[in-house]
Amino acid sequence: MNHPAFYTTESWQSLKNQAACFDTGEYHLRVLLNDHNRFDRFSIKLEDFFFDFSKQRMDESVFQNLCRMARELDLPARFTSMASGGSVNRTEKRAALHTAARDFSDRYITTGSMDVKKEVQKVNRKIRAFTEDVHNGRITGSTGKRFTDVVVVGIGGSYLGASFVNTALGYGHKRKMGLHFLSNVDIDNFAAVIKNVDVETTLFVVISKSYTTVETMANLNQIIEHLQACSIDPEHHLVTVTSRESPGDDPSNPVLGTFHMFDFIGGRYSVTSAVGGVPLSLAFGFDVFEEFLRGAHQMDLTAETAEIEENPAVVAALVNVWNSNGLGYNALGIIPYSTALSELPAHIQQLYMESLGKAVTAEKNPVSYKTGVLLFGEPGTNAQHSFFQLAHQGMAFPIEFIGAVKPGFTGEQELSGGVTNHQELWANMVSQARALAVGRENPEDLSRHFTGNRPSSTIVIPDLQAFHIGMLLSFYEARTVYEGFILDINPFDQFGVELGKKLAGTIRKEMAQKNANPAHSFHNLDEATRFYLEILLTGEL
Amino acid sequence: MNHPAFYTTESWQSLKNQAACFDTGEYHLRVLLNDHNRFDRFSIKLEDFFFDFSKQRMDESVFQNLCRMARELDLPARFTSMASGGSVNRTEKRAALHTAARDFSDRYITTGSMDVKKEVQKVNRKIRAFTEDVHNGRITGSTGKRFTDVVVVGIGGSYLGASFVNTALGYGHKRKMGLHFLSNVDIDNFAAVIKNVDVETTLFVVISKSYTTVETMANLNQIIEHLQACSIDPEHHLVTVTSRESPGDDPSNPVLGTFHMFDFIGGRYSVTSAVGGVPLSLAFGFDVFEEFLRGAHQMDLTAETAEIEENPAVVAALVNVWNSNGLGYNALGIIPYSTALSELPAHIQQLYMESLGKAVTAEKNPVSYKTGVLLFGEPGTNAQHSFFQLAHQGMAFPIEFIGAVKPGFTGEQELSGGVTNHQELWANMVSQARALAVGRENPEDLSRHFTGNRPSSTIVIPDLQAFHIGMLLSFYEARTVYEGFILDINPFDQFGVELGKKLAGTIRKEMAQKNANPAHSFHNLDEATRFYLEILLTGEL
Repeated sequence: MNHPAFYTTESWQSLKNQAACFDTGEYHLRVLLNDHNRFDRFSIKLEDFFFDFSKQRMDESVFQNLCRMARELDLPARFTSMASGGSVNRTEKRAALHTAARDFSDRYITTGSMDVKKEVQKVNRKIRAFTEDVHNGRITGSTGKRFTDVVVVGIGGSYLGASFVNTALGYGHKRKMGLHFLSNVDIDNFAAVIKNVDVETTLFVVISKSYTTVETMANLNQIIEHLQACSIDPEHHLVTVTSRESPGDDPSNPVLGTFHMFDFIGGRYSVTSAVGGVPLSLAFGFDVFEEFLRGAHQMDLTAETAEIEENPAVVAALVNVWNSNGLGYNALGIIPYSTALSELPAHIQQLYMESLGKAVTAEKNPVSYKTGVLLFGEPGTNAQHSFFQLAHQGMAFPIEFIGAVKPGFTGEQELSGGVTNHQELWANMVSQARALAVGRENPEDLSRHFTGNRPSSTIVIPDLQAFHIGMLLSFYEARTVYEGFILDINPFDQFGVELGKKLAGTIRKEMAQKNANPAHSFHNLDEATRFYLEILLTGEL
Repeated sequence: MNHPAFYTTESWQSLKNQAACFDTGEYHLRVLLNDHNRFDRFSIKLEDFFFDFSKQRMDESVFQNLCRMARELDLPARFTSMASGGSVNRTEKRAALHTAARDFSDRYITTGSMDVKKEVQKVNRKIRAFTEDVHNGRITGSTGKRFTDVVVVGIGGSYLGASFVNTALGYGHKRKMGLHFLSNVDIDNFAAVIKNVDVETTLFVVISKSYTTVETMANLNQIIEHLQACSIDPEHHLVTVTSRESPGDDPSNPVLGTFHMFDFIGGRYSVTSAVGGVPLSLAFGFDVFEEFLRGAHQMDLTAETAEIEENPAVVAALVNVWNSNGLGYNALGIIPYSTALSELPAHIQQLYMESLGKAVTAEKNPVSYKTGVLLFGEPGTNAQHSFFQLAHQGMAFPIEFIGAVKPGFTGEQELSGGVTNHQELWANMVSQARALAVGRENPEDLSRHFTGNRPSSTIVIPDLQAFHIGMLLSFYEARTVYEGFILDINPFDQFGVELGKKLAGTIRKEMAQKNANPAHSFHNLDEATRFYLEILLTGEL
């Protein structure tokens, strides 16, 4: 399928002209919000998900043009192509089938000659059986003791998503096992994680698609030595999540179990595959993981089939492009008003910035417009007491507020100032969005002057149950993919990480030579690199 | 003292012209780095601190002009004025004396009629005595059991700094007590913290300058009820860190102890005051806290007295202003290659964005240039597998890499690929800075083309000992203050947080009225606010 570039569409031409007007007072959010129909018009209410974009800097005509552009770009059909196994990862000539990992519909999906859902379901059945065996004590550690804790050894896409969901589910679901993450190659990360578990009752889940990820292999190495030093047989304490026929899938290298991951699901989209499935099912049980998948699937269906105007993922993607390429913003803040969602910003940061931080189109031509912006965030109300000074009076950037109607806590809450803590939390979330939008004039004292006109969206889920965490995750995945489609960039590759890895390989080799032969000289290296390696070796600055 | 605005100086005029040249290939970092003297020239080596700015986009002439500008603006003298008690917080007509909290010199400092160091030392002696009593079991909880854990109840400046340092010190020092933080008003934050401690052996440290901070008071309320429900006498489990004569300093409201904070030390600069002193001394002992203070003081001395060219805090501030106002960057990434420093980015995000996210000068005139940029970060190598795709190929932003020559871990490390984990960590840190700077041409395949020319600095401390964590903290405080001086904005106020608080107060009142009288109607509120309050009350989306 050929699609026009977004900036060549008629609708975008109109939008460019409209963007220029938005600097005038007439289009200030304070004015736009006077329209009493606006909140109803610019919000999308699904059964279990609410998306409010009424505080974005747009009017009816901008919104219509954005939706028209979405149709010109044939967005939902491209989502369907992705979800059906089309080669949407064009630079790597692959499908992108994270949605298949949770596709409970009767859609038949193939890539190459593989019946994708059959394979995915096979892995999931294996996860269910294995994790039940661990919970029931049919599978134990090498000394016969039941496993109590799980350590995931993985980095990036093999870590951030599962870690976010693990934290989130901990507030609405009963935990069956402790779940820890060893991601960084920093030896202090290893030491901190090991200190917190009893290795005799700990299961290590090594996650790496290629099973060659440097950090993960180095940490695995430390773990195996440590287990042996503790007289624990590693074979009975390890499982792997990896590609078929990777070194982690080698029967000569025995482990308790191997769960396959597939090249049509990229790391940052892999939470609903075995990458999330194994650790999350161990932590909470497979049934909870399955509810999480069902929620993700529910949002996938909406993302694929809902009308543009009623489709939160599409509208949110259009809003982002309008904000970056129309109004010129360079960043996006993600502020969950929920402790349970405290790791959401770090996960979405990876998902969004790795997917959209590109300089070429999907056909490898240079782009002439803005691609992904900087994304960061912290939970509210904490963020209000941290960087919101800048959000209100410094460089403006759009924000997404996220709230859960019900907290995980179900006990009695004392009232303070006549309200519960949870009500106080929401009073703040709602107030921040409004304060950013309307501002407050104070010409007498400019240090207390608030320009306002700072855009935000608000996302609400009913509670912290797995189903709704799944919807939230899928919303962000679909939005990211849609933004990639609009910008005509490939949201599934990540060639930008290669150069640093390559240079690290060179330095590693030099260092290894020096370790083996103290007479080895670093004369091939530049001055800075030489200096850093030398202080590292002497241990003295 | 009157100083010219930075943009009116002759040196800045030259710099503006030079900035324009830096878009040409001649000034690409790849070219600049060919100069073998550059690393030596553009790095500052102190006894225990190393600052490398050789990968910043500047040449000798730019550096000279920046230093000339620093002299024209009389920067070090302004630091001296601050450290001596001058009213540098001009909008609030106060001193800013965080440096006095760790001033071991014989400088005599007054503000109003107060002998500042005498007061600070009095508080510190009280902290030492109290924490020793807790450690020795002379002070116990209400059932006579020794305290094992501390929960800090505080938010923003009463939380982020101490939390960062607590994590950092955990890798190089023996812990005497567990230290936990309850910051967010979210009831799930309360539930998660309480679940992790045994209240019978837990000491709660309530930190709030005014003792009216909404979040902190609401959490204190939950705690007191919970303690009473557990038949624990709150009086024997609470201490307060607050202003003299605040409600937390009221003898009719008895607690185990009260430690004073002063209005001349703002929250985000308060880690070296009682705000950090009480929790960190409980966690590690007062001696460790004092070492931390000594390190901070060491860097304060350098920041105040070193020549511009040899002054890391001043040079780093100049680099920031060159990057934001000269070269046009909008963000700064903070990437510590150290698990121990994992909370540094969140703390510096607050310190920097709350200090410099301003729209008016210190005299309350509107600014016509860029003030603070967006600051965010995650530890490396994690960040490499997360958002570094964008850092290499998407929107460019300067980065600060931070490393410790020695990790906290002192055991044997297995070799992987011939190197230790710590060597691998450093190989990556060094490689990323270089890859970002030099890039790699690949005209054949633009998806693998790296433009390079992406600036970074590298900061190195010798190890994770308290003294060096103190130096690092003070470096960032001094750099922030200097950047405020250059930009002629007040880095000590935060009026931007007021409007949101005010609106939250209105909504709280409406909600409280509804709680008291279910017939209360929200007709005074806008549609959006009404909707959010209604779903919250019914508990249904």
